[in-house]
Amino acid sequence: MVPIRELQKMITAEIRSQSEILTGREPKELYAPVEYSLGMGGKRLRPVLLLMAFNMFSDEIEKALPAAVAVEVFHNFTLLHDDIMDRAQMRRNKPTVHKQFNINNAILSGDAMAFLSYRYLMKCRSKQLSGIISLFTETALEVCEGQQYDMDFEKRQDVTEAEYLEMIRLKTAVLLGCSLKAGAMLANSTKQKARQLYEFGINLGLAFQLQDDLLDTFGNQETFGKKIGGDIVANKKTYLLIKALEKASPGQRKELTDWITQKEFKPAEKIIAVSDLYNELEIKKLTEQKIDSYFNVASQLLNLFPLEKAIKKPLKELSERMLKRNN
Amino acid sequence: MVPIRELQKMITAEIRSQSEILTGREPKELYAPVEYSLGMGGKRLRPVLLLMAFNMFSDEIEKALPAAVAVEVFHNFTLLHDDIMDRAQMRRNKPTVHKQFNINNAILSGDAMAFLSYRYLMKCRSKQLSGIISLFTETALEVCEGQQYDMDFEKRQDVTEAEYLEMIRLKTAVLLGCSLKAGAMLANSTKQKARQLYEFGINLGLAFQLQDDLLDTFGNQETFGKKIGGDIVANKKTYLLIKALEKASPGQRKELTDWITQKEFKPAEKIIAVSDLYNELEIKKLTEQKIDSYFNVASQLLNLFPLEKAIKKPLKELSERMLKRNN
Repeated sequence: MVPIRELQKMITAEIRSQSEILTGREPKELYAPVEYSLGMGGKRLRPVLLLMAFNMFSDEIEKALPAAVAVEVFHNFTLLHDDIMDRAQMRRNKPTVHKQFNINNAILSGDAMAFLSYRYLMKCRSKQLSGIISLFTETALEVCEGQQYDMDFEKRQDVTEAEYLEMIRLKTAVLLGCSLKAGAMLANSTKQKARQLYEFGINLGLAFQLQDDLLDTFGNQETFGKKIGGDIVANKKTYLLIKALEKASPGQRKELTDWITQKEFKPAEKIIAVSDLYNELEIKKLTEQKIDSYFNVASQLLNLFPLEKAIKKPLKELSERMLKRNN
Repeated sequence: MVPIRELQKMITAEIRSQSEILTGREPKELYAPVEYSLGMGGKRLRPVLLLMAFNMFSDEIEKALPAAVAVEVFHNFTLLHDDIMDRAQMRRNKPTVHKQFNINNAILSGDAMAFLSYRYLMKCRSKQLSGIISLFTETALEVCEGQQYDMDFEKRQDVTEAEYLEMIRLKTAVLLGCSLKAGAMLANSTKQKARQLYEFGINLGLAFQLQDDLLDTFGNQETFGKKIGGDIVANKKTYLLIKALEKASPGQRKELTDWITQKEFKPAEKIIAVSDLYNELEIKKLTEQKIDSYFNVASQLLNLFPLEKAIKKPLKELSERMLKRNN
């Protein structure tokens, strides 16, 4: 089995070589933001998952590289457009694309990236290609639906836990599931195995997004790469906020609701006040328990997955690393 | 051969039935702008071209309907995003999507439409499907490139005629060519015939875009559906402006350049002043001649196309109608 670090190297090299091809293309104003976005780095999680799933059934990893690039380019497209919609200023400790260039650039170069992801996908030689394109297209639509729910929820005060979990399933988890399933399909796995890996990806993705929510409030800005407290400022209906509203005493609920409905406020003050309430209500512990429960389902699914332990090891390691269970 | 009117009816019915499916889908905030956009009407030119090309080789038109919907949905996606970038307020005599809803809606629902167009395309049962998806993807990227050039040109004063023609080839003509070629491919035409129809589409598209530029200044607001003079206000480097700058006397050039570089101006005054200059320089006639030349190449290509006259008649009629040569 090819180790994680090797897979990441292969992906980085492939993305760099694809970026260099784009450098030569005109108009530069369209392709420079694409390059900037792909050059921002990141964990390359989705392409790694795709290659790992592929590698469980085949050693010819280079055959899956175009699809790996496709899911990473698609993921970066969603970041470009989400950052415009969320007015985010920073991503991976760098200015977001619409800050570095402008909003029109971020819209149009984002569009180009959506189509570039299909171009990369089409480079795969596989009998399963049409099935993979359908999976990818349905996933892309689900990701759009998830982003819409996320925005809608900002204006609502009555979002339930179930609604929130469905939103993050769509916004985050399905692309992890899709990456794994596409990797398996490309390697001609059985349909059932591809489906099982998708399920594993969904649970991993739910745990991962819950952790992202947790880090947005309780993380370290440098390692997190975004401003801490952004979710609080934007009234994002995260698991943290939903649970806090649920557990709060009448007094605490009033304080929380006042902060959410306040039109004028100092961001730093709001972040401190809401974090304090989260601490009083032990929201961090509660969220960690929820993360654990999804992580445990994912681990269980992987344990039961009908392949040798050695073959499943990289995926096990990666999921532990993603959720910081490796120390 | 199925007449134009019948094809339009089939497309309208198909789009309506697809829209009704979307009405049932959640989140409504994502799909309502899609429905609004598809319900705005329009000439349905691209799907008609696709069905006509298909019908030249096959009578089973219903087999090509999903692809026809795909090119129309894609076209409407580009309108949504272009209208944000161009800050257009009106389209087909109705508020643009970002005016009727908001900018975030127009970005995200536009994205969803891009992926919906692939979903429709994937519904086609054809051995040529992977070739058609590649053609569609490359075309989509070219359309993005055309839009980028169009925006870049607004800031430049030295755009040449050749640069302008390449821009409209990318922004408008390739999608007409793609629609025709995809229709032919779906009906299993020879590669050569599909290529010839693409060339016909390019020339038709160039003539069509030049005419659109002409109508933006010299058209009737009600039949045109957009505000007259929008290109003049936005300093769009149209064929009209490029030719005017080329033909102007030093005095006329100074007047034109003053209007282009002026930051503060009354739109109505600018439109009248620039139109007057166009009249002095006989730009309308010049543009009509250019339209004629592309229309003649397209007609010639269709005449030489190796199929019976009766089979080519609908396409001939449509191109005459598009360019108002039918009276």
